[in-house]
Amino acid sequence: MIAAVDLWADVRPDSARRLLLAAVDAFASHGYAATTTREISSAAGVSPAALYVHYPTKADLLVRISRDGHQATLDVGLAALDGVEGPAARLHALVATFTRWHARHSVVARVVQYELAALPPDAFAEVARLRRRIEGLVRAEVEAGAATGELAAADPALTARALMSMCIDVARWYGTGTRGRPDPDRLAAEYADLALRMVTAPQ
Amino acid sequence: MIAAVDLWADVRPDSARRLLLAAVDAFASHGYAATTTREISSAAGVSPAALYVHYPTKADLLVRISRDGHQATLDVGLAALDGVEGPAARLHALVATFTRWHARHSVVARVVQYELAALPPDAFAEVARLRRRIEGLVRAEVEAGAATGELAAADPALTARALMSMCIDVARWYGTGTRGRPDPDRLAAEYADLALRMVTAPQ
Repeated sequence: MIAAVDLWADVRPDSARRLLLAAVDAFASHGYAATTTREISSAAGVSPAALYVHYPTKADLLVRISRDGHQATLDVGLAALDGVEGPAARLHALVATFTRWHARHSVVARVVQYELAALPPDAFAEVARLRRRIEGLVRAEVEAGAATGELAAADPALTARALMSMCIDVARWYGTGTRGRPDPDRLAAEYADLALRMVTAPQ
Repeated sequence: MIAAVDLWADVRPDSARRLLLAAVDAFASHGYAATTTREISSAAGVSPAALYVHYPTKADLLVRISRDGHQATLDVGLAALDGVEGPAARLHALVATFTRWHARHSVVARVVQYELAALPPDAFAEVARLRRRIEGLVRAEVEAGAATGELAAADPALTARALMSMCIDVARWYGTGTRGRPDPDRLAAEYADLALRMVTAPQ
């Protein structure tokens, strides 16, 4: 459960925190639909009744994980832009940060990215708004750079999508025993450089 | 089930083909672990006994889908290279083809990409070999181009991974109601151009 700990480090009581971590592990391992609340309470070492107190339904756990995971992604993105000037430097910072996040939190990120369809409608709508803001951070820099000529992008929206794909797909392959896996910081730096090339016109 | 039809168009008898398509739909919708063989036989309109004749276990269905999906990806990659000369042109052809494949077959591709951990060990080993060959096609062109100076890549393996991520992640977002979704051919052309930029050194 190492990967998910710091995202919910401040959740109290401890049983509520352990339930979130157990749910992340179970949802990431065999999917939301195949997981029972009893499996989660058992893995967290709490009674089914105690689970019910904190999270009345299995969906409540998924909503919490998905909302917090998306909010954290948006927050690290906004923080990465703080004090950074110019679309190239800002895009570099965003791609590095999102890549690092999806490597460090690959287990949480798999739940966040692959269980959208299992969210109840209200939560889905809220999460969809967060997703548009996250991708919007990247697209805004591509558009700003294309407008001034500092960056080149025939289709800024599609370019932003491709850049997000590089970052998000890290969650799929990172931490699944891939050999020669780079550490999150090196991966982040390399991917950010690749991203900048993608929006730099060949002379 | 439209997306999966042509991959198994020649499977006979028709009930065996319908079972594969129903399994793809079910595995993609709520995951392998949460799907029962009874749900698959019911969706395919065949009896549980008929399912058993073709696929004695649920794992047999997943193995068939995963193996065929990976083999088809490798095959379209090899076909794309036929008669194409030079690492830049060959890389362009590979990225276009893999992008188009993951858009056209996004439902099959989600099962292929997200259910690796559910494969039995023997099938996993076979599929892992296919995956290394698929990614190897891309890496070989990046390495060949870097060796001659036609392409630039500080880390060819990581660059190939990022390029594959762009293509593979299409399966995640394509066909999930994303607004303004480009058609597979336009997406393929744009992504191939972006990929070439990624391995072109800024002057």
